[in-house]
Amino acid sequence: MTNSPSASTSARPHDALREVQIECGYLESNPASVLYRSGKTIVLCTASVETKVPPWMAGRGKGWVTAEYNMLPGSTSPRKRRDRSGKVDGRTTEIQRLIGRSLRAVVDLEALGERSITVDCDVLQADGGTRTASITGGFIALSLAVEQLASTPLLDPPIVVADVLPRSVAAVSVGVVHGKIVSDLDYQLDSAADVDMNVVMTGDGRFIEIQGTGEEATFDDEQLAGMLAVAKKGIRELTQKQSQAIGSRKPSSVD
Amino acid sequence: MTNSPSASTSARPHDALREVQIECGYLESNPASVLYRSGKTIVLCTASVETKVPPWMAGRGKGWVTAEYNMLPGSTSPRKRRDRSGKVDGRTTEIQRLIGRSLRAVVDLEALGERSITVDCDVLQADGGTRTASITGGFIALSLAVEQLASTPLLDPPIVVADVLPRSVAAVSVGVVHGKIVSDLDYQLDSAADVDMNVVMTGDGRFIEIQGTGEEATFDDEQLAGMLAVAKKGIRELTQKQSQAIGSRKPSSVD
Amino acid sequence: MTNSPSASTSARPHDALREVQIECGYLESNPASVLYRSGKTIVLCTASVETKVPPWMAGRGKGWVTAEYNMLPGSTSPRKRRDRSGKVDGRTTEIQRLIGRSLRAVVDLEALGERSITVDCDVLQADGGTRTASITGGFIALSLAVEQLASTPLLDPPIVVADVLPRSVAAVSVGVVHGKIVSDLDYQLDSAADVDMNVVMTGDGRFIEIQGTGEEATFDDEQLAGMLAVAKKGIRELTQKQSQAIGSRKPSSVD
Amino acid sequence: MTNSPSASTSARPHDALREVQIECGYLESNPASVLYRSGKTIVLCTASVETKVPPWMAGRGKGWVTAEYNMLPGSTSPRKRRDRSGKVDGRTTEIQRLIGRSLRAVVDLEALGERSITVDCDVLQADGGTRTASITGGFIALSLAVEQLASTPLLDPPIVVADVLPRSVAAVSVGVVHGKIVSDLDYQLDSAADVDMNVVMTGDGRFIEIQGTGEEATFDDEQLAGMLAVAKKGIRELTQKQSQAIGSRKPSSVD
Amino acid sequence: MTNSPSASTSARPHDALREVQIECGYLESNPASVLYRSGKTIVLCTASVETKVPPWMAGRGKGWVTAEYNMLPGSTSPRKRRDRSGKVDGRTTEIQRLIGRSLRAVVDLEALGERSITVDCDVLQADGGTRTASITGGFIALSLAVEQLASTPLLDPPIVVADVLPRSVAAVSVGVVHGKIVSDLDYQLDSAADVDMNVVMTGDGRFIEIQGTGEEATFDDEQLAGMLAVAKKGIRELTQKQSQAIGSRKPSSVD
Amino acid sequence: MTNSPSASTSARPHDALREVQIECGYLESNPASVLYRSGKTIVLCTASVETKVPPWMAGRGKGWVTAEYNMLPGSTSPRKRRDRSGKVDGRTTEIQRLIGRSLRAVVDLEALGERSITVDCDVLQADGGTRTASITGGFIALSLAVEQLASTPLLDPPIVVADVLPRSVAAVSVGVVHGKIVSDLDYQLDSAADVDMNVVMTGDGRFIEIQGTGEEATFDDEQLAGMLAVAKKGIRELTQKQSQAIGSRKPSSVD
Repeated sequence: MTNSPSASTSARPHDALREVQIECGYLESNPASVLYRSGKTIVLCTASVETKVPPWMAGRGKGWVTAEYNMLPGSTSPRKRRDRSGKVDGRTTEIQRLIGRSLRAVVDLEALGERSITVDCDVLQADGGTRTASITGGFIALSLAVEQLASTPLLDPPIVVADVLPRSVAAVSVGVVHGKIVSDLDYQLDSAADVDMNVVMTGDGRFIEIQGTGEEATFDDEQLAGMLAVAKKGIRELTQKQSQAIGSRKPSSVD
Repeated sequence: MTNSPSASTSARPHDALREVQIECGYLESNPASVLYRSGKTIVLCTASVETKVPPWMAGRGKGWVTAEYNMLPGSTSPRKRRDRSGKVDGRTTEIQRLIGRSLRAVVDLEALGERSITVDCDVLQADGGTRTASITGGFIALSLAVEQLASTPLLDPPIVVADVLPRSVAAVSVGVVHGKIVSDLDYQLDSAADVDMNVVMTGDGRFIEIQGTGEEATFDDEQLAGMLAVAKKGIRELTQKQSQAIGSRKPSSVD
Repeated sequence: MTNSPSASTSARPHDALREVQIECGYLESNPASVLYRSGKTIVLCTASVETKVPPWMAGRGKGWVTAEYNMLPGSTSPRKRRDRSGKVDGRTTEIQRLIGRSLRAVVDLEALGERSITVDCDVLQADGGTRTASITGGFIALSLAVEQLASTPLLDPPIVVADVLPRSVAAVSVGVVHGKIVSDLDYQLDSAADVDMNVVMTGDGRFIEIQGTGEEATFDDEQLAGMLAVAKKGIRELTQKQSQAIGSRKPSSVD
Repeated sequence: MTNSPSASTSARPHDALREVQIECGYLESNPASVLYRSGKTIVLCTASVETKVPPWMAGRGKGWVTAEYNMLPGSTSPRKRRDRSGKVDGRTTEIQRLIGRSLRAVVDLEALGERSITVDCDVLQADGGTRTASITGGFIALSLAVEQLASTPLLDPPIVVADVLPRSVAAVSVGVVHGKIVSDLDYQLDSAADVDMNVVMTGDGRFIEIQGTGEEATFDDEQLAGMLAVAKKGIRELTQKQSQAIGSRKPSSVD
Repeated sequence: MTNSPSASTSARPHDALREVQIECGYLESNPASVLYRSGKTIVLCTASVETKVPPWMAGRGKGWVTAEYNMLPGSTSPRKRRDRSGKVDGRTTEIQRLIGRSLRAVVDLEALGERSITVDCDVLQADGGTRTASITGGFIALSLAVEQLASTPLLDPPIVVADVLPRSVAAVSVGVVHGKIVSDLDYQLDSAADVDMNVVMTGDGRFIEIQGTGEEATFDDEQLAGMLAVAKKGIRELTQKQSQAIGSRKPSSVD
Repeated sequence: MTNSPSASTSARPHDALREVQIECGYLESNPASVLYRSGKTIVLCTASVETKVPPWMAGRGKGWVTAEYNMLPGSTSPRKRRDRSGKVDGRTTEIQRLIGRSLRAVVDLEALGERSITVDCDVLQADGGTRTASITGGFIALSLAVEQLASTPLLDPPIVVADVLPRSVAAVSVGVVHGKIVSDLDYQLDSAADVDMNVVMTGDGRFIEIQGTGEEATFDDEQLAGMLAVAKKGIRELTQKQSQAIGSRKPSSVD
C-alpha cells in the first residue's frame, strides 16, 4: 500500500506512540461512531446493531460481531481504486478478519443474545497502522453500541454491558527498522521496516493475536522479545485512552 | 434509500437552503480534499490527478474528469451494505454518472491537457441531497486540484486555471411536498415528496442538467416553473459559498 | 453509443416525429408482444406476468411492474458487446430504471394485486431514441398483458383494466441541434445535439419525468420552453397511435 | 428449457422438416442480417466483421469466426431470465461453442485473412431446435458478410468468396419419440423424446458434428442409423433453401 | 488445452486402450474415492453423499447425481490457470455436464430416494482423455458411494444397490489420426486428430452419448462406423476393469 | 473448516510431529511435483516456471515467486464447495498469501532473474495443518524447480541454485489444547485448541512468520514461550526431512 504523509517522525522516542485523538459520537445519526486519529492516520469507526444473527448461527442464543475494513480512494496517494470488481483484495480481507477476531475475543456472545453488531472501519487518511487503529477505535465504537443497546427501554432480553464486554482490546504495530525496535510504525517507518509485527492484547495484558512477518528478512528471539515489550507498553497507554474516551460508561474490568 | 436524522425541519422557509459548511484541505495528505456539510448530510470530496487519460482518449490532447460516489455503511440507519459483490447498484451508478457529467460541463478538457482528475464523493452521513452536495462540494475539490496542478513548478504543458475552469457548477434538489414547492429536500422531506427534481446549473445561471421525477405522481407546468425558480435561488447562494471557500483562488467567472 | 443508419433526415420538419409502426402480438407465443418501429429504430417489447411479487413487497396486496432494456449486438455498427461480464453498463441501468419508473407512474399497483409484470425492451436496430421508443412501446405491451390477465377465466382476485391502468404514458426525445429545437432525435441528430432532453408524459398531458442534459454545453430558459413545447406535441401524437394500436381494448382515460 | 407454442404437430410426416422462412437483410443497418424461422422458432442472425483478430491469433495471417447465442427473455414462457450475473449458463455456452465450431468447419481461415467475424444468434421465439436453426441461419448471415466484405472496394488484402467459404453447413435435430424416429423436433416433441441428436453436416454430405444424448434413456445401433438417415434428408433440404436465400451470391460448391 | 507427456505411443495397436490402473479408497477419509490412471492421465474421483436434493427437486421422492470436473494447475504444461474469476471456462462446463448426464443415465433416481451424490473429478495429470477417464472412474466412485450408503445401519428409507445402479457406464475417446481410426487418444494423438469422438455406453452395450467433432475437418459414414467399432471394443474392456475394481460389490447387470 | 479423519492421536507425545512422507517427482510430466503427507493430511505441491514476471515487476531484473492454495472438494467431509463464484474465500486468500511470503523469504529474487515461479498447493486430504504442510512441501517443489531450471542447457542468464535459495523454510502449527502445549495439530486437536499458532522458520533457525491466534481465548507469555519451543524442535526435524528428500541437490545452507 503506497502513501505519503509522515514527514519528520524521527523526533519520537522509539517506544512512544503517535498522538491519539478520539471523537465519540462523530456522526449525529449514530452515537456509536468514533473518529479515531493516530498521528495522520484517520479511521471512522461505526458500529451498527441488528436484532438477528447470520442464518448459520440462528437459534443458538448467541450473538455475532463482525467487522468490515475499507480504505477510501482519497486516503492514499496515488489514489486507491475502489473494491468494486467483486474481488475484495487479499490485504483487505485479511485485515477485516483480524479486526473481527480481535473484537470477538473480548465479547461474550452468549451475553449479547441473538443480535449482530457490525463494526465498520473506513480509513479516511492512511499513514500506517490502519489495522491497529481500526481495532483500537473499533472497540470504542463497539462499546458505545453495547451501552446504547443496554440502555434501550424494554430491551428483550436485556443485557448487562459488563457481561457482554468483560474486557477491552487494543492493538499496536511494532517493528524492526534499520536494526532498531520501533513502536507504532507510520507509513515512512513501515516502508523501511525489516520486520513488522501487529500485536493485539486485552486491557488486562493477555495476548489475543500476534502476527509477525519478515517479507524479505527474518528475525531472532531477542528481536521478538524486544518487539513484544514495546507493544505491551503501547497497549497499556491505548487502553487508558480508550477508557477515558468511553468515560464513565466503560466496562469495569478495563480499570 | 432509508435514513434517519432530520427532526424539526419545518422551521426552514420553503425556499431556503439548509446550513452549509465547507472545510477545504480536510486531509493533510491531499490539499484537494473538502468536507462538505449541508445540514446533517456530510460528504468527503477528494480530487486526485493522474498524468494520463483512459486508453480510449489517449493521444487526443484532451483531459478527462470523472467522479465516483459512495455511501459509507454507517452513513444511514439501518446500515447500508457495501457494494462489494461486483455489482454497483443502479442508484449509485446513476448518481456518479450525473456528478461526472455535471463537472465536465464546466471543464475545458483541451485546456486541461492529457490528464485525468477523479473526484471521489464519499458520503459520511446521509440526510437527503447527497448527490447535489456531491456536485457542489465536488466542484470545490476539483477547483483546488486544478489550482494545485497549475502551481506545480515546471508543469509541462502548463495550464491556466481560468482556462480549465471557465465557470463553476452547483446543484440543488427541489420538490413538491404536500402540494407545496420546497427547496433542498432533507431525508424527511424527500420521503414525503410527490415530485423530486435535481437541478444542476452553472454559476452564471445556465442549465446543465434537469432531472425531475414523479415515481407515483405527476406534475404540471406551473409546478415545474415553481421548482425551477427556487432551484435558481438556491444555486445562486451555493455559488457564492463555493466562491468564498475557494477564496482568492476562485476562477474569475464565478464572480 | 455508436451507430450508423439515418441518412437524409433533414426533410422532416423540426417538430415532426419519425414514422411509427406498431405490430401487436408479434410473437405467437406471447400476445403481449409488440414490435415497435420509430424510423429505423426497432424495439421488441414483451410483457410477462408472474403471480407473485419480489420478496420485499410480499404480503402488502400490491403488485409490481419492472422493465429490462437491452441492445442486441447486431443493433449497432460497430457491433455492441453483450453485457455478460456481470456488469450491466451504467447507461443500460439508467435506461431500464427510467422505463420502469415511467410505466409504474401510470399503474395502480393496488388494483393489480400481488402480481409482477416484467416489460422487456430488446433493441433490434438502434437509430436514436431507443429509450423513448421502449417507454412508448413498452406501455402497449403492458396494456396487452393487463388486458389478457383481466380476461383470464376465474382470475382470483379479478382485475379491471381501467383500474389498473387509469392513464397511458408515452415519451419522446427532443434537443437543441445547431441552435435549433428539434423533435425525436435520430442517431445523426443526437450526435450533433448540444442538448438532449427526454420527456415522459401521461396521455392526459402531465409530466412524469424530464431529463435534460448538456454534456459539453448548457441551455437557458427559452430553450427549455421550446423543447417542452415540441415534446408535448409529439406525445399527443404518440398517445393517439398507442390508442389505435391497442384498439377497442384501450383504457378509457386514453381517449 | 421450458416453452409453450407448438400445438398440433402430429400432422407432419416423421421425416419432414417444419416450414422454413428466411428473410435476408432484415435490418437496414446490416446487410448480413437474417431473420430465420423454422415453424414457430424465430432466430435473428447477424454477422459483424472486424478488421482484426483476437490477440492470441494475431500475426499468423489467419482470420477467426466465432458465434454468440442468446435467448431473449420473451422467447419462452415462463420468461427466461437474462444472463447478467456474469455467469452464462452451461447450456448457452455449449450451444454457442457448437455454432462456432460448425461455422469454422466450412471457413478457410487463411483465405479470410486477419479479420474476425462474429455471428450473433438471438432467439426471438423458441419452439425447439434453436441451436440447429442458429447454425443453418448463421451460415447464411456469415455468407452475406463474406460477400459484402469481398465486394468492398480496395479491400486489402482482397478475398474470393468461394475460397473463404468452399462449402456450406446446415444442421437439424432428430430424435426417438415414443419409440419412433422423428425429424426436426419442436418443443413438444423434444420434451417427449427419449433420445435427442443434433447433426451438423456440410452441403456436400459430410459430418461436421454429431451429438446424440439419452439423458434418462439409451439407444442402439439401429436407432442411431435411423436418426442419421432422416438427418441427412433434412440437411439436403436445408442446404437447398440456404442456396436459394443467398441467391446468385452463393458459394459455388453448394450447388 | 495444451499439455506435454506421451512420448512414443506409436507402439500401441490402433484399437488398444492405454494401461488402466484403479485404486479404490485412495483417501482414508472417503471410501468412495478412486485414483484412476489411464496411461499418464490421472484423475482423482470422489463421490460425496448429501441427505437432501437441490430445492427445485425437493419433495418429489427422487434423488440427484451431479458431477464437477476440474484440472489442477500442475496437471498441464504450461500451467493451467485456476477458474477463480467467477467464469468457469466453456470447456470445463461442457465436460462436467457430460459427466453428470452420463452417470445419471445409469442411476434410478427414484430408487436413490431424496439424496444427492456429487462426483468430483479432479485431474492431477492430463495426457488426453480426461473426460472419458472421469466418466469411467467417476462411475466407480459413484458405485462405492452407493454401496456405502446401502450398508449404513438403519438407513431410512433403505436402498438396494442393484436398484439404484441397474447398469454401469464407461467411456472412451476415439478418432481419426492421419486418416486412420485410433482408440483412446492421448494428448499427442489428440493434437494430431482430424476427428475426435467421445463415446459413452452402458456396460450392456447401449449408447448413452455420442459426441463426434471435426473442428477443421469432416468425416463420412465409413469413418463413423470405424470409430464406433473400436469404441465398443474399448468400452467392453473398461467395463470389465470397473467390475473387477468394484469387486464382489458390483451391480449384477455389469456381469 | 470442517473435517473428519484423525482418530486416536493421543498416543503421540505432545512435542512430536506426525509421520511425514515425501514423494518427489510424483507427476511424470513435472519433475517439480511433490506429494507431501503429514499424518492423514495430503498436499500435492507443484512448481511451474515462467520466463517472465508480472507487469508491475518487469524490467527490474528481479524474479517473482507466488503460491496458490486450494482444497479439493473431496478433501473434507462434508464436501467442500469449489471457489468458482469469483470470490475466493478469505481463509484461502490468507493462506496462499502466507505461503507466498514464506517462500519468498528464502529466495534471492535478483539471483533468480526475470522469471516467475508459481507453487500450487492442492490439498487432496485435509486433517489439520494444511497450510504448514503446504509451506514445507512447497519449498521442496520450489527447490526442485530451481534445480531443474539451473540445469537447463544454455540458460540465459544462468543461475546458481545456492544463490537463488540460500536457505530453506519449513513450518509447523502448535497450540494450547486443554491447557497443554501441543505440536503439529491434526484436525481433532485443532478443533479442541484454545490457541493456534503457525510458526514459519528458516532451516538455520530464524523466524520468518509467527501467527498466533486465540479466537475465543487468550494466552500469556509463558504459553507463548512454550509454543515457540516445540515449534523450533519440529522445524528442525522437518528441515532434515526436506534435506533428505531433495537429496544431494539440496542448497548448502540447509546442512
